[in-house]
Order: sequence, then structure tokens, then C-alpha cells
Amino acid sequence: MSRDALPTIDDIRAAAARIAPFAQVTPVLRSDALDALTGAQLHFKCENLQRGGAFKFRGACNAAWALDDDQAARGVLTHSSGNHGNALALAAATRGIAAHVVIPEGAVQAKVEAIERAGATVHRCAPTQAAREAMAAELQRQTGAVLVHPYADSQVMAGQGTLALELLRQVPDLDALMTPVGGGGLASGVAIAAHALDPALALFGAEPAGADDAAQSLAHGARITSVVPDTLCDGLRALVGERNLEALRAHHVDVITVTDQETVAAMQLLWRELKMLVEVSSATVLAAILKQPPRFAGRRVGVVLTGGNVDLGALPW
Amino acid sequence: MSRDALPTIDDIRAAAARIAPFAQVTPVLRSDALDALTGAQLHFKCENLQRGGAFKFRGACNAAWALDDDQAARGVLTHSSGNHGNALALAAATRGIAAHVVIPEGAVQAKVEAIERAGATVHRCAPTQAAREAMAAELQRQTGAVLVHPYADSQVMAGQGTLALELLRQVPDLDALMTPVGGGGLASGVAIAAHALDPALALFGAEPAGADDAAQSLAHGARITSVVPDTLCDGLRALVGERNLEALRAHHVDVITVTDQETVAAMQLLWRELKMLVEVSSATVLAAILKQPPRFAGRRVGVVLTGGNVDLGALPW
Repeated sequence: MSRDALPTIDDIRAAAARIAPFAQVTPVLRSDALDALTGAQLHFKCENLQRGGAFKFRGACNAAWALDDDQAARGVLTHSSGNHGNALALAAATRGIAAHVVIPEGAVQAKVEAIERAGATVHRCAPTQAAREAMAAELQRQTGAVLVHPYADSQVMAGQGTLALELLRQVPDLDALMTPVGGGGLASGVAIAAHALDPALALFGAEPAGADDAAQSLAHGARITSVVPDTLCDGLRALVGERNLEALRAHHVDVITVTDQETVAAMQLLWRELKMLVEVSSATVLAAILKQPPRFAGRRVGVVLTGGNVDLGALPW
Repeated sequence: MSRDALPTIDDIRAAAARIAPFAQVTPVLRSDALDALTGAQLHFKCENLQRGGAFKFRGACNAAWALDDDQAARGVLTHSSGNHGNALALAAATRGIAAHVVIPEGAVQAKVEAIERAGATVHRCAPTQAAREAMAAELQRQTGAVLVHPYADSQVMAGQGTLALELLRQVPDLDALMTPVGGGGLASGVAIAAHALDPALALFGAEPAGADDAAQSLAHGARITSVVPDTLCDGLRALVGERNLEALRAHHVDVITVTDQETVAAMQLLWRELKMLVEVSSATVLAAILKQPPRFAGRRVGVVLTGGNVDLGALPW
């Protein structure tokens, strides 16, 4: 398939087989207190316990192993300094190939160190989007490495979709599924996989009110690119991708927006009741359920906790 | 059985059946990075994800449900302000009976609130051991409630032992098991259960060097009660109980002592590599393995993470 096509369920099943030797089967946890609070039956899929501390390893691992030998010999490349960069570094190491990660000056040092620990080569650049893209393009010319986009890449979307296959095997009779929405790599992959297994599943997304381009785009019937992200949820600041949006629309993903204040309160609840300390971006899912309880009451809801790379020295409260 | 006898494997199996409707089956997690660091194959049993955030719910729940109806009608009582107090409050709520928890002035407010949220009645007293015992005795006279000791109680030990049955079902071919040692309720219950299933299992305990009464007692062949605890590990300051020590000796539990500095470093490693933020007391187990790698190299080791009730505002680094 072309690098930016939407994956099919067959692509997602192939991804699941490809990453099985390397990815964790993450646990699903329950909390009586959170069930009582929401009136729903919540099944938390703990991807914060995935390798690298985020679901991103699924997509990156599938992308690394889907390369043919010639491509693999030239390595992989990304200019994400967040969880995708770290995931791609870890994924490349599982295949024993080179990974190049372009990181802007000023990135959190702990993240840079984790990427280097995983064995990737870090390339520093000025902290602008233009500088990142220019350096990535230059590295591609020099090395021939394959650029793996964090959410618009087919193999990445297919990898993220494996999460839904795994969750529906662990909890077969869900009524609904909820993921955060940033660039839409996770939400689109999960939507395609989930509806292939059970077309009756209700699909929800959670988006920060300060980066609600997916909600706006779905409401207006066209991709809105004018949103300037203003949210604590650093993992959800990306604009939703064109193809990702297409999948969200086709699968009727209902996006609920939440304020940062609601999200931080949900992050505290997840810590208090579930003992899961997750990234603020990950807490949007519980905030969204608490915002609109009637839509979830009495239903069995799969809720994806996407990442656990929290800086304990900079908690958002 | 009498309230302070050691439980048998049959008692522990009965406890497992009793608590099954209420306790979480906690996940077992792996980390390639921690395996590489230790040279062992570590299987982390995440009791920090147990109800109430600690393994203590197992013992408390078994104690609450082992009461006959007359006893149950009078309720349960403890003077532990830590995880056992919270666990007993939650356990009593599952049976719909009263719980009285004696708490000294100056206890952490978040813990008091959690116990009250669980529906227990909190009784404040002066912050001395004598005041706690006096108030507990007075409450027993007034209410007839059954005192449930945090580690010397048979039903509590039997409940904690269920953890080993569950772990050995999840990972049947372990070579060794490691738990922290405080009062010894967990270590003794686990030793009895584990050796009933597999007498060849090597059993280890981890104890803070600043509260090493169990290690000293085992070395000297008699219970040492002169140790004045001086450790950050607030969950492991209790002196090992008489019966608990008896079980540790009978089952050849090998206790390794670790400094607080080693334990805090292990706590940071568990967060970084496993994304589990556990109580400092819980991190002693990894610190002990890192201290004596040759004893664990190449072995499959079950490692119990006992609790996750961390005060995010007061991390020990």
C-alpha cells in the first residue's frame, strides 16, 4: 500500500502478527470507584505500560518491520521529539537498523536521553517546524532513511489499530470505545479495526478544547487547519491528518472536547483510583466520559490510556 | 484456627475462594531493560494495582469475610493508619459491616480521607503507640468489634498468601520469589503458599537496613526486638511478628538488606522502565536484586510490588 493510504483490517492483522514478538500485551484494569462515579463499566487499556511507555511503539514497530531489506538497511527517520521518536528508536533497535531522530533545541533532556539509550542517533536543530523539516529532508538525502510519520503513515495507523484487536480479545463484549484524538493515528487505526470486528461499536474520541480541530473539522464537514493549539496536552497538539479525518468521519467517531482543567482533574482521579499515573493527554478520555455521563451510563466502555511518560518534577497541578 | 496461628495451604486456598469476588487479579509485567540490568528474568506482580492500591486488601478482605455472622454484626477494628487501615475499611464495605480505624493525630490527611471515603469510622487519638492501643481496647469494649491485626492475624496471613497462588498460576515456572519484609504478614503467607505448590522455589525477602530486625532475628536464631526503625520505608518499620518469623525460618526465606539510597534508586528505575510508581517500601525488592545479582542471574524471579500509595507532592528525591 502507499505510505499514506488508510490501512485495511488485513493490514492491521498483519501488523499484529509483525509486532507480536516485541510489543507488550498490556493489561486491562477496572475500578469500582470510577464505575460508580461515571455510571458506566469502564475497561482501561493500559498502553502507558506498553514498551517505551506509550501505544506509539505499536505503530513504530510495525513500520520498522514492514520495510523490505533494502529499505531497512538505510534505516528510519522522524522529527518527533515526543513518544513517537522514542518508539521509533526502540522499534529500530528490535530490527537492528539505524534510527535518526531530529530533535529541536530545548526539548526535555530526559526524552533525549531515553532516545539515545534506545540506540538512535539524535540530530539537533533550531526549534521551528521549518528547521525540523529541513533537517529531516537533508538527512533523508544523505542516508536514504525512510521517514516514518507519527500519524499519517499507513503502517503506523495499522500498528495503532492492533490495540483494538487486542482489547476486543481481552474484553469481547464492549459497547463503546474511547481514545484521545491528536493527529488521529490511533483513533483512525482503532476505528478501522474495531468496526471490522463489531460494526455496532460506538466510537468516541476525546480532544482538548484548546486543540479541537478534529471536532471542528467533523462538524464543518471539511478539515480545519486554522486552529492554533493552546493546551497542556502536549501529545494532542498536532492537527488531525487528512486521511485520519477521513477515517474518523467514515466510522462516525464522536469527538467530545474537554478543558485542560477537566483533564487535569481526570488525571488526578486516574492516579487516585487506578494508581495509574498517565500523561495529561491520556486523561482526556476520562474527562470526556465525566463530561457527558448519559452517553456512557450502563455501557461497557473500552478506554485507552495512551501514555505514561510523565515528568514527576512538573506535574500539572 | 486461633487468630494468631500460622495458616495452612488449605486456609490460603479457602481465602482465595473467599476474596475472589472482590479482589483484583493483578497483572504481571516484564521489562527488557530491567532484565538486562539484572541478568535475571523478572516478573513483577503489580499489587500496587490491587484494590486500595496495596496487597493489604487480600488479607483484610479474607479477615472480614471469615467472620461468622455474630462477629460480623459487631464490625472490625484496627489501629493501622497505613494501607492496612484503608484495606480493612474497603473490605468491611464489601461485606456491609462497620469498620473502626484508630488514627493518630498528624496522620497524612489524604490517607484519612481515603479511609472515610471507604465508609469507615475514623477515631483520632494521640500519636503514641500507647494511645492507639488504649483507644482500640476501649472501642473493642464499647462495640465488640473484632481487632484485625495487620500482620500477626491468621486470616490476614492467609489472605496475603493468595498472592502467591495467583502469581504461580500466571507464571507457573518461577525459580524464585521476592517480597519486602516488614511485619512479615506477606512474606509468611507467600512462603507457606509458594512452598506448598513448589517446594523447590527459592524464597527471598527485602528489608531496609534501617529496620533489619527480620534479618538480624534470622541470623541470631531468636527474635530481636531492640531495633529502632530508621528508614524512609514507612511500610516496613514494624518489627517482624513472632509467628511470621517462625514461618520465615521454617521456609528458609533469605532476607537481603538494602539502604534507603539503594531503594530510592530502584524506585526511580521502576518508574522509568516499568512506568510503575510504587511506594518506596515496594522498591526494596528491586534494590535487593540489584545488590546481589549473582543470586538471581539467569533465574525466573517473581517480584512483588506491594503498594502504590505514593504522595506525589513528597517524592523521596
